[in-house]
Amino acid sequence: MQLGLIGLGKMGYNMRERLRKGGHEVIGYDPRPEVSDVASLADLAAELTAPRVVWVMVPSGTITDQTIVSLADVLSPGDLVIDGGNSRYTEDGPHAKLLGEKGIAYIDAGVSGGVWGLTEGYGLMVGGSDEDVARAMPIFDTLRPAGELADGFVHAGPVGAGHYAKMVHNGIEYGLMHAYAEGYELLAAEDLIKSPQAVIQAWSNGTVVRSWLQELLAKALKEDPGFDEITGYTEDSGEGRWTVEEAIHHRVPMPVIAASLFARFASRQEDSPTMKAVAALRNQFGGHAVQRISESG
Amino acid sequence: MQLGLIGLGKMGYNMRERLRKGGHEVIGYDPRPEVSDVASLADLAAELTAPRVVWVMVPSGTITDQTIVSLADVLSPGDLVIDGGNSRYTEDGPHAKLLGEKGIAYIDAGVSGGVWGLTEGYGLMVGGSDEDVARAMPIFDTLRPAGELADGFVHAGPVGAGHYAKMVHNGIEYGLMHAYAEGYELLAAEDLIKSPQAVIQAWSNGTVVRSWLQELLAKALKEDPGFDEITGYTEDSGEGRWTVEEAIHHRVPMPVIAASLFARFASRQEDSPTMKAVAALRNQFGGHAVQRISESG
Amino acid sequence: MQLGLIGLGKMGYNMRERLRKGGHEVIGYDPRPEVSDVASLADLAAELTAPRVVWVMVPSGTITDQTIVSLADVLSPGDLVIDGGNSRYTEDGPHAKLLGEKGIAYIDAGVSGGVWGLTEGYGLMVGGSDEDVARAMPIFDTLRPAGELADGFVHAGPVGAGHYAKMVHNGIEYGLMHAYAEGYELLAAEDLIKSPQAVIQAWSNGTVVRSWLQELLAKALKEDPGFDEITGYTEDSGEGRWTVEEAIHHRVPMPVIAASLFARFASRQEDSPTMKAVAALRNQFGGHAVQRISESG
Amino acid sequence: MQLGLIGLGKMGYNMRERLRKGGHEVIGYDPRPEVSDVASLADLAAELTAPRVVWVMVPSGTITDQTIVSLADVLSPGDLVIDGGNSRYTEDGPHAKLLGEKGIAYIDAGVSGGVWGLTEGYGLMVGGSDEDVARAMPIFDTLRPAGELADGFVHAGPVGAGHYAKMVHNGIEYGLMHAYAEGYELLAAEDLIKSPQAVIQAWSNGTVVRSWLQELLAKALKEDPGFDEITGYTEDSGEGRWTVEEAIHHRVPMPVIAASLFARFASRQEDSPTMKAVAALRNQFGGHAVQRISESG
Repeated sequence: MQLGLIGLGKMGYNMRERLRKGGHEVIGYDPRPEVSDVASLADLAAELTAPRVVWVMVPSGTITDQTIVSLADVLSPGDLVIDGGNSRYTEDGPHAKLLGEKGIAYIDAGVSGGVWGLTEGYGLMVGGSDEDVARAMPIFDTLRPAGELADGFVHAGPVGAGHYAKMVHNGIEYGLMHAYAEGYELLAAEDLIKSPQAVIQAWSNGTVVRSWLQELLAKALKEDPGFDEITGYTEDSGEGRWTVEEAIHHRVPMPVIAASLFARFASRQEDSPTMKAVAALRNQFGGHAVQRISESG
Repeated sequence: MQLGLIGLGKMGYNMRERLRKGGHEVIGYDPRPEVSDVASLADLAAELTAPRVVWVMVPSGTITDQTIVSLADVLSPGDLVIDGGNSRYTEDGPHAKLLGEKGIAYIDAGVSGGVWGLTEGYGLMVGGSDEDVARAMPIFDTLRPAGELADGFVHAGPVGAGHYAKMVHNGIEYGLMHAYAEGYELLAAEDLIKSPQAVIQAWSNGTVVRSWLQELLAKALKEDPGFDEITGYTEDSGEGRWTVEEAIHHRVPMPVIAASLFARFASRQEDSPTMKAVAALRNQFGGHAVQRISESG
Repeated sequence: MQLGLIGLGKMGYNMRERLRKGGHEVIGYDPRPEVSDVASLADLAAELTAPRVVWVMVPSGTITDQTIVSLADVLSPGDLVIDGGNSRYTEDGPHAKLLGEKGIAYIDAGVSGGVWGLTEGYGLMVGGSDEDVARAMPIFDTLRPAGELADGFVHAGPVGAGHYAKMVHNGIEYGLMHAYAEGYELLAAEDLIKSPQAVIQAWSNGTVVRSWLQELLAKALKEDPGFDEITGYTEDSGEGRWTVEEAIHHRVPMPVIAASLFARFASRQEDSPTMKAVAALRNQFGGHAVQRISESG
Repeated sequence: MQLGLIGLGKMGYNMRERLRKGGHEVIGYDPRPEVSDVASLADLAAELTAPRVVWVMVPSGTITDQTIVSLADVLSPGDLVIDGGNSRYTEDGPHAKLLGEKGIAYIDAGVSGGVWGLTEGYGLMVGGSDEDVARAMPIFDTLRPAGELADGFVHAGPVGAGHYAKMVHNGIEYGLMHAYAEGYELLAAEDLIKSPQAVIQAWSNGTVVRSWLQELLAKALKEDPGFDEITGYTEDSGEGRWTVEEAIHHRVPMPVIAASLFARFASRQEDSPTMKAVAALRNQFGGHAVQRISESG
């Protein structure tokens, strides 16, 4: 089928390719003319045959907001917009409402798979009405991985459910990565273990902890044993924070995912104000030495 | 090759079967005559041709200790003992020494795979000398999963390294399980999500969080949606505790695995003394109501 | 000076008494006629001499909102409203704006001390303009504890700063209480310790951990050794959740306060969905027994 | 009464002074001749009148061990040794046994108070027999703070109980310090708050979180606002680690104290291997940028 695709970055570019290989007609728009098929959103709307289906794949927050507002102007009643970016699920209601006032339908889609999606397919979690989801199904079917539909695609619920499921997916991802990473650090600290990489590699088959992330960790360690070339500075992209906020909202105890989130915050601090306060306190009551700035490496 | 196998429980029984299918001659001993091939450890030793290889697959702690002591009596110089149970790695040195004084060699082997090992093969992490490991390699080769050797087997280092790697494997396992479980609880708490099971199932292909544990969680939820039939009471089998103790020993920050361990402790408490103290404190300073035992459901 | 005081519950009632003892003229309003000095907010406004100062001491959220809206109607330009309840600091801006449009000034005041404030005085953290704070200073001076002004009162910053400081105070309170409570549980678990109560009592002088909460814990244990009469069910009143949300907002790692918050959530669950999922997973891969509902006590 | 005191460091030196002011005859031994009253342990034994009481106040671990062994040689049946250092409680049994074989009695004493103990007195938690504790009571009575006996001294149980109580005291101390420090960091991150120091200072009277540590934090911030002169590098002295190990031993959930311990470990790492692994993983699956060593500040 025909699809308009807005945003041709790391994700959108590959999705266009996968969809075209799957036989769809994709017209892509991106502000960078070297990758874009059309010059503007208005041109995109003009090129597509109504009723249109337009997939938005741009950074969450302001840019997604602006894109939705612009689409409300250039699209027509009966069209369908899919937000496939990492928007917070609380954005979906307002976006659906804004478009709905123009008679434009809305689906939110959580998309997982990163740079591997082009070849492996993208895990898809979508929210919207049965009718809207059915309409976009040929697109979902090409984007999702081969195999059983239920193993790579879920219609998770009404508008918002797709991004909610993706948010939880990413929250879990934080916890999983941190669990493996803690285990790696312990293996690396122990002299008995000749090669942490070899141990982690050996978990690829038969073990309880085998997973895609485990394989990637073994691969990363093969490429840079000891991680000597990189620092521990780690960004977080929103979903982890939102997951913990949702846990607080629903009164769900979430120590593991929260700990992995806090560790990312800490990784970006040059020094910890909390630990400065602890060090200062120990000095106050016990006369324990503090490390002066002038003494630190 | 010929192998003596002590302990024919959930793990050992299946391992005997997998080894026999692989063409090995296995003589199994277990105190339960209905599964045992011989009547005693002495008989086991008598039936095996020296130099013998004997695999110990019994509960860690006292029973493993006693078995090693008994083997030191009935085996001969040149024999080889493999402890494949979940012993703490600190036991391996003493066991190797005790046997070594009789001229008997020792390997420790961490074995992962649970009830699935019979058909899928067992992930193996072994510790010992190159010579000893090479001698037992035909056994390891049959037990391990099909595929590349390095993906299901590792000679992790000297005696102790196998159990150390297995301990870390299990510590990571605690963290992974808890991360998935926290995500499940949040999905189940949110009305937008029609079916947490369907969402988790859909992560099987293409997503970052896909793994064997993720598939098992989807399977468990399919069998008992909402987990209405079970309680959250969860045992821990030693490796989780030892992993956190090792983290303390090596001064490795381990918030995620520790949190998942503490949650298991909490799951087995009828009520939390800590929270009773917190509730009592709130009552003291704020006059906040406490729940009297007589009022609780 | 003259003060209108709205809300004569556990806190407001005692504050009226303390203020009257301090020589102020307090006219209190409460929907319960048996404690109220006037019949309505309108009557309260009528009884007070303009320019009025009115202290709001009602539950945070909707009731505070409604009270502020009502006050905007019955008060006059030049009056001053103080919100002394546990409102979220994000409410202060809108409240100040709403009142400001009528020419009414606004201060937010965090008040600590609970049931002990009547005799000990209340710790006060206030936000507002210098002018407004100076105007209400006679009231603050009577409510605060005896001793140095700076030890029981702080003008923390502009509108919102008082509630922010109080929110952080309460977040810390969660962490402190939990730290003591964990220590208590460990003392109670160890046979060597004859009386956890006696140990905690003995920390009252000379030790590093001496504090008001430590004294209250010793007192609570004296009244109910072993906490046999209460359950661990513990409410949380908002500030703990907001503190962790603020930490996420500011990217501040906050493992300790978050852990104490999550433990409160857990204390109110009949069973943990997270731990059910963990138990189910262990059963899936290892055949480990789960506790069936039918078997649980 | 007469006391031999071994170890005249930061703690022992002040204790000698406090005891002498209290009218006791103290003969101190320290390897540094400039502070020592005698030249050797043998001289110390010779100067004391049997039956002797000797207080050991040296670093825990090897030095305490060696001192106990030496005392077993130079003391006589009927003498009494008190270990007032921060020994692990598991050391007390062996020390009591070793001395007991020579007819020498043993008490373990946890001592809190740090550099303030000289003037304020030391919080004391002791373990031993009723008879032995009664014998040393005049010493304890002078060392402990003024006020009620039960508020600064506890006979916590048999040998080991004193150090156990002190260990838990210090574990709680870790948690308390971290809770205050997290709150401080959040106050410092928020623009509304003019002075975190002033807020924390204002908690000194009337509030729920008032404590000695709170006062020390306000004092530390007054001396070095923003903690600009120190780093967050923080040692840990054993008791925190042992507390968490005991929690694991007793299956006590201890998330708060464990989190504060792990944060100390992290404060001493130049970079976190765990976070390097997390960063590497994100790069693997998402193409997310990692910070190269060459790019880091």
